[in-house]
This record gives sequence, C-alpha cells and structure tokens, in this order.
Amino acid sequence: AATNGGVVITRNLDSDAVINLDHGDPTMYESFWRKMGDKCTVVFKGHESLSYFSNVKNPCWFLEPKLEDSIKSLHGAVGNAVTDGYSIVVGTGSSQLLQAVLYAVSRDQTTQMNVVSPAPYYSSYPEIIDLVKSGLYKWAGDAYVFDKDEPYIELVTSPNNPNGVIRGAVVNRDDGILIHDLAYYWPQYTPITSSLSFDIMLFTASKCTGHAGSRIGWALVKDKEVAKRMTKYIEVNTIGVSKESQIRVAKILQVVADGCKRFGSPDGDNFFEFSKTLMAKRWEILRETVKNTRMFTLPKYPLQHCNYTGDVTQGHPAFAWIKCKEGIEDCEKLFRGKNILTRSGRRFGSDPGYVRVSMVSKEEDFDAFIERLSAIQSFNNGDG
Amino acid sequence: AATNGGVVITRNLDSDAVINLDHGDPTMYESFWRKMGDKCTVVFKGHESLSYFSNVKNPCWFLEPKLEDSIKSLHGAVGNAVTDGYSIVVGTGSSQLLQAVLYAVSRDQTTQMNVVSPAPYYSSYPEIIDLVKSGLYKWAGDAYVFDKDEPYIELVTSPNNPNGVIRGAVVNRDDGILIHDLAYYWPQYTPITSSLSFDIMLFTASKCTGHAGSRIGWALVKDKEVAKRMTKYIEVNTIGVSKESQIRVAKILQVVADGCKRFGSPDGDNFFEFSKTLMAKRWEILRETVKNTRMFTLPKYPLQHCNYTGDVTQGHPAFAWIKCKEGIEDCEKLFRGKNILTRSGRRFGSDPGYVRVSMVSKEEDFDAFIERLSAIQSFNNGDG
Repeated sequence: AATNGGVVITRNLDSDAVINLDHGDPTMYESFWRKMGDKCTVVFKGHESLSYFSNVKNPCWFLEPKLEDSIKSLHGAVGNAVTDGYSIVVGTGSSQLLQAVLYAVSRDQTTQMNVVSPAPYYSSYPEIIDLVKSGLYKWAGDAYVFDKDEPYIELVTSPNNPNGVIRGAVVNRDDGILIHDLAYYWPQYTPITSSLSFDIMLFTASKCTGHAGSRIGWALVKDKEVAKRMTKYIEVNTIGVSKESQIRVAKILQVVADGCKRFGSPDGDNFFEFSKTLMAKRWEILRETVKNTRMFTLPKYPLQHCNYTGDVTQGHPAFAWIKCKEGIEDCEKLFRGKNILTRSGRRFGSDPGYVRVSMVSKEEDFDAFIERLSAIQSFNNGDG
Repeated sequence: AATNGGVVITRNLDSDAVINLDHGDPTMYESFWRKMGDKCTVVFKGHESLSYFSNVKNPCWFLEPKLEDSIKSLHGAVGNAVTDGYSIVVGTGSSQLLQAVLYAVSRDQTTQMNVVSPAPYYSSYPEIIDLVKSGLYKWAGDAYVFDKDEPYIELVTSPNNPNGVIRGAVVNRDDGILIHDLAYYWPQYTPITSSLSFDIMLFTASKCTGHAGSRIGWALVKDKEVAKRMTKYIEVNTIGVSKESQIRVAKILQVVADGCKRFGSPDGDNFFEFSKTLMAKRWEILRETVKNTRMFTLPKYPLQHCNYTGDVTQGHPAFAWIKCKEGIEDCEKLFRGKNILTRSGRRFGSDPGYVRVSMVSKEEDFDAFIERLSAIQSFNNGDG
C-alpha cells in the first residue's frame, strides 16, 4: 500500500499492468447500479419488440414512448434543460445524433457547410465529420481561428470535452448554426446553473448514467423540420434505434428521475448525489496528488450555485485535462512510460503538453493511476 | 367472411382501414415466438453491460462473444454460409454494415467508387449510398447498364429484394468488388442449395428470425483488413452496437440453431420448419387469388433441392413482386385505391406496372390483403 494525502491506496494492480484511461468508459458507475439491485431489471420475452416501428403517431417513429416520457421526467427533475415545445429524437449514441444534425442542417444548403468547434475540441469531431468525405459538410477546425466568409456550423460542447470548462459559442455570426453537445451537463460533473433552451441539444446515457454499452443518446430539437430530417438520417443509416436499449434506458432514467430529489436518503438511491460525491472525492485525491508531484497542473473550476443541489459548488469533470510543466514536451509519452494510456492534447487541437485522462474508470484503475502519478514525483527528484 | 380456394378468411379489418404492406415489417413471426414462451427470455440487471467494450481481444471489439458463437452455430446448422476463416462484424442492422463495407473498400482508393446493383434493386440502396453525398463512393445505378471504365462495387442481393430471384453478379469485370446481401438466404424463403463463401456476406436478424426492432445485422468477411476498416466505420458512426440487442439476438439465434434440426418435432420448436410452412401456405393462397383475378402475374421460382430440409422445393420470398397486366400503368396507385399501401416498381429501378408487397405482415393484414385482392377481380368485371 502507498499513502497519498492521508488516503491509503491499496496496490491492486501490478505496476506493469497497462491502465487504459484514454477513453471515457464509465465503469465507475457500476457500483451504484449493483447497489440498486433489481430496481432497473428489465425482461424481454422472445415475442416482444419485433417490429421496426415504435410509435407511428410520432414523426420520430422509432422512438419508444416510455423513453420519451422518462427523458422529460429526468430533465424536469434535474432542471438542466427545457423539454416543453421540443421534439425528441433518439439515436444510437449522441455520435449518431451529431451526424443526424449535420445532415439535417446541411442537406438543403447550396454550399458545403464548414463545421467548427473551439479548441480544445472533442477528438472524435474531426473523425466523425470527415468519415466518408461528405459533400454536405466538412471539418473546418478550431472555431477560434475560423474566418472564412462561408456558412458554418459551430459545435459547442459544455461542459467541454476534454477540459471540463463551461462554454459558449465563439464565432458569433448571424449565419451560423449552433449545435450544443451537453453530454456532461449533469450534476455530478458541473453545477446546474440554468435550464438550457438552445435550438439543438444533445445528451447521452453513456455520460448521464454510465450505460455506454446501450448506445442511447437523445436530441432536444426546437425546429420540427430539423427533427424530421434528423429522423430521416437515422432511418436511412440504421432504420431506427435498438428497442431493447431504449426500453432499458427508459427504465434507468425513470429510476434516476424518481430518486434524484431524495437528498440524504438512507436508501442511497439518489444517483446524482452518489455520483457527485464520488467525482468530488476523486478530484480531491487527484488535486492533492498533483500538488505533491509539482510536475503537473490542472484547470480550476469556478464556484457556482447549483440549482439542483441548492449548494455552491465547483465542477468535477469526467476527464482530467492534465498539463505537464516546462521541459516535458510530450505528456502522453511520459504517462505511457508508466503504462498509463492517456489521450494526447494534439488529438484535441491543442498541444502535446496536455493529456486527457478518464476520471470515470473503475475504482482499481483510478487507484492505480493515482499511485503511479504520485510516484512520478520521485522521478522528478531523481529517484526513478 | 369470404372464401378463397377453400380457405375461409374472416373479415377482421374494416375495408377502409389502411393496410401497410409497403415495408417488410416481419410481425408474422410473432406467433412463433409467443409459442416459445420463456425459451428466449433475457433479463438485464441495472449494473450489466455498462462498458463500451465487449471483447478487447477481438478486432471487432464491440462484438459480444455469445453473439459470435450463435452466429457460427446457426450457419453451421443451416448450412447456408461458411464461417471458418471469416471475420464477423456486427452492425446496427445490415443497413449500417452496408455503409461499413462501402467505407472499408473505398476509403483508400484514389477515385470515387461507383456502386451498382442489378435492377430491380433494393429501393433503399440509392438512398443509403447517396445519403451524405460521400466523396468515397456514389450510386451509379443499374448494374445491367453499367459501362463506365471506372472502379466499381456491385451489390448482389440473393434472394433478390424485391423479386425473390436467386442472383449472381452481372458486371463481371476483374476490377469489381462484390458485396453479397444475403438477408433472405434462409430456408423459409428459398432452397439452401449450397454453403456460400463469398468475400463479403451480409445477414440480418430482421429477416432471419423477425426481430427487426433489435437492429442487429452481421457480416462474414474473408479479408481481415476489410473487417478492421468496417469496425472502424461502426466505431466512428455509433461507437459500436447495442449490447442488449446483441445479447438478446444471441439467445434467439442459439434457440433457432438448437431447434432447427428437429424436423416434425411435436414441440413445434423448429423455427425454419414453422416459417417455411407459413410462407408456403401464404404463397399458395396468394397464387390462387392472383390466378382467379386474372389481373396480375407473379414470378415463378424454380424447384430446387434444399440441403437443409432435404426436399425439392421452390422459393417463397418475403415480398410478392406483383405485375399488373396490360392497361394498368400504375400498380401502386391501383392498390392505394383499395387502401393497400405497396411500394412501386419505380423505386426499385423497374417500371410502375410492378409493386412490391410484404408477405411477412401479421395475419390479419395478410388476410385483409387477400380479401381485397380477390375483390379486384370484381372491378375488372365491371362490378366495382
């Protein structure tokens, strides 16, 4: 065992074992869902959900009604987004929804649309946008330096991936179309300062409840015609979205919505309370460890009033955006040398002095990361 | 009630009710799966399948191992495709897999690939291929008339959608890439004449077992590198495929594989035997009805030896490709006048004298279709 700031960290993993914190696989949430026992258990009999169709009365004909209901319940309970007057479109993750939106807003344009996002931007955006070299849209890089006199689409990710910062649009021209990726706008990651009502808002179960394997995202869309074209994209791309995933996530979101007002409940069934506490604890450990190494820096997050908890609190993002101090040019390489896989700042349109590290991994991976991180201090002092 | 060829058809639907046979929603299979009771029941607890990852040792890292196993079992039991030496890629339906293959085979080419298919071709192919105006590939129409001296990809659908015919490639140049869409190459639709071993073979649960809502397709791919690039496409498009759907379909396919050698089983648990009998009965009723109307014609299917049943049998495709006789130019319009929605031959690169009609709808829709079809004879005799 090693100690770090008074917290004992048990050595569970061999120091040669590779710890993969490059992606945001949200296995941290497993312990909460285990504790919930059968509350979210779903059963599918062989004859159920054969049809392509979920609800022929809904323009989004493949959206399961129970999922629509639970999405509205959840946003209502948390107060992070307005749903009244919005169309809801379900997708196979918010990745598919992003492509659906790009299609929807660019399909009838006369010129190819530029898609920009302020750096550091989500590393997958360029990959997704340029995947099949679409004639409808193309990746046009960092929104901060976008100066073409051409129509554009700006992706605003808030809280941002990779650096957890609350963001607004930066191009700010009249002819721009804004897409808000709000995957992390949940209480465990950031204070809920208002109920957002942008034109197009994307969410994903992966980052809300941790159910990444289900592949469920949803879009709140103001313009019915945009929602219809998004539906068309998903119809052609995958003829809708898995019914099993939708039905299961509907139950999970409803359980979260039902429990999320019960602060301090002895049953421990307030998902956001549990998750926020866990994220806060991990960030406290991380900050203490980083302080002691004197090798790295972390972003600071402002204290803000959270409408959901009623407290004044700071953000505890799903990723740590770690900067290596002077002299270390390639932070990703440094960590790789310690068998910790991280994602280089280069991938986010930033510099290689930064890495993005998952803060939502399973407990043993996080503990091993902290242990090895604290040992890097020794390296600096010539003990390595 | 009306009689047709000795079979009593009960009038269940109001003659004004719209019967939608435009798509191939496979709700016909529901009665079999109900009969199977709990054999295919699957249960998901809240803490299961959170991770993005299914099997990090597999290049297709999001493929659930049980699904891979049951796919191999099923093809082995039916004998319709070789799996030894093949990579398996799972997709959100075979629609997504088609796009994954197009990406995989065109991504590293220097010119945009022409994608062709012999008419009448599946009506969704042009839509899928040209969805986002990809620079990698484009729809280039009917393979029978393709004469450009450029690289091409040929989609061979066999049995064909819409007309149920067994197909081979038609362009037959050395520089072509063939993709075989074998969605209907199952015993209920067509004799299994050999275990196919093409380079790229696509299948879908929707048409095999009727579980269209699950959105599960799979590709058998000879070239590992092609399989890797297909995996990449699906990774970027949707970060993998629903775990719930995969786990459920794995169970269903295994139950089908286990039961499918039990011919004449008193439990009635041989899925293909049940389905083949049902399709044969429906086609017999349809042929009798069409013969009596003297207004329409249907394709004939050759008698062939089926390796799976051991019988000599003909095909009973999932769609009826109905031709209106002379004088009726727009067959889709004719049926629409009877509140039967069909898909016009135009959509398949053929002429509007044809329509494609689903033969896999639920019982009451099929019965109502037959009833109204037989009444069209009266129209021809001046009684309408």
